[in-house]
Amino acid sequence: MCSIADVEANLAAAHALVADAARQGARLVVVPEMFLTLDGSQFQSLAARSDLVSTLAAWAQDLGIWLVAGAIPLPSPDDDVRLRSACCVFNDQGEQVARYDKIHLFDVDVGDAQGSYQESDRFAPGEQVVVVDTPVGRLGLAICYDLRFAELFQRLADQGAELISLPAAFTHRTGEAHWQSLLRARAIEQQCFILAANQCGWHDDKRQTWGHSQIIDPWGQVLTELGHESGVALADIDLSWQQEVRRRMPVQQHRRLNKP
Amino acid sequence: MCSIADVEANLAAAHALVADAARQGARLVVVPEMFLTLDGSQFQSLAARSDLVSTLAAWAQDLGIWLVAGAIPLPSPDDDVRLRSACCVFNDQGEQVARYDKIHLFDVDVGDAQGSYQESDRFAPGEQVVVVDTPVGRLGLAICYDLRFAELFQRLADQGAELISLPAAFTHRTGEAHWQSLLRARAIEQQCFILAANQCGWHDDKRQTWGHSQIIDPWGQVLTELGHESGVALADIDLSWQQEVRRRMPVQQHRRLNKP
Repeated sequence: MCSIADVEANLAAAHALVADAARQGARLVVVPEMFLTLDGSQFQSLAARSDLVSTLAAWAQDLGIWLVAGAIPLPSPDDDVRLRSACCVFNDQGEQVARYDKIHLFDVDVGDAQGSYQESDRFAPGEQVVVVDTPVGRLGLAICYDLRFAELFQRLADQGAELISLPAAFTHRTGEAHWQSLLRARAIEQQCFILAANQCGWHDDKRQTWGHSQIIDPWGQVLTELGHESGVALADIDLSWQQEVRRRMPVQQHRRLNKP
Repeated sequence: MCSIADVEANLAAAHALVADAARQGARLVVVPEMFLTLDGSQFQSLAARSDLVSTLAAWAQDLGIWLVAGAIPLPSPDDDVRLRSACCVFNDQGEQVARYDKIHLFDVDVGDAQGSYQESDRFAPGEQVVVVDTPVGRLGLAICYDLRFAELFQRLADQGAELISLPAAFTHRTGEAHWQSLLRARAIEQQCFILAANQCGWHDDKRQTWGHSQIIDPWGQVLTELGHESGVALADIDLSWQQEVRRRMPVQQHRRLNKP
């Protein structure tokens, strides 16, 4: 989706897309990073609103789906003045069953209209690698810039991840250059399904994201892919195919450096 | 190139390509893995021939280039009955300045005409990560199946690699599915140049390799790429561009897991 500055409008748009996915048979739905808004000036007030997490929990319960709720600004557990960029997972009973706080923060000069991004101004990094069992497989959690750090995906797989979700707001410039190569590489090297939900379009007069949300299988094949527009990308998760890929090419057994 | 069972013919073909590269101005040349032959039944006799290394050294000296001599079968330094798949680097004086023994061995059921590969039947794995300074930049050494192990490339970059060579004999089936995504991902995540020299075509009635030798820059852009045929892929290595990429996106400084 394309989040704008208006949080209520983003909530309505996200709900419509999640409901559409559920109607099409999705059992687990991933929404993009900071789908409530990419406008950093609103993050503190959003983190102070207790109603948002319960709203998302209600979506999951009402629609009967598991929801990987992108990332939203939440208070730090250790009372850092900075927030965390948190990915909450809700089960189909509306219970929060996991929370992953983004570990790698985007402090980068992209050279686009926005210029530089300093995510660590507003956010402190998470510390914990998080996996959670879901009805479609064991799920590892990662967010956006984490994609560049293969070692996180290795740890998720070491903890049994069969699929890895990646809510993102990958910029247009870095997305065009890197998005699909890195997504496919992570799928191939960990032999995992990758569920990548990216922001798309222009969010204000400076910030443009790449879109191209997609689902990739453990052989690196793109099962479904959106373009530059909002929408729902849906695919079947076939864990028996994953087992076949891992049996034929036991990459994890061949590791000789950084063994688990 | 496309190595066949005839070692002398392969030597002549490789020399013609290396000489062609030198004539076009190459200062450092990478040739594919097992360019002397992919026929495993000849590996023991090749490893026993002391003339081969001196022949390759003479190519480098005569042509005035640095030569990353693919991989060839060489005896194990620890007298394992198995050989090593070794990548020797010769400077333009014909001196051997580095040797890397392939760490990750290809024991895989690809499901192609050959069926399964058991590289560890004939080879023992190397133990050492190797980088070497060359006139075009600090070079890290990797071979073929190593490409699937991001942690090796991380270690090469940690040791200062600016470019990483990858002689390979990537199969047609795995190459079509994985070659370019993995190569580009390694370039992007380590912000290194990648010099990938792959075997191509049919080597016998069972074994087919993917070709598509290429040079990738630290932003993940493919600077030059061959197709399914033999040939020379040539590119300029601009280390100032690499510094610019690393300055704008200091990925290595953002690591939080497995810090060096």
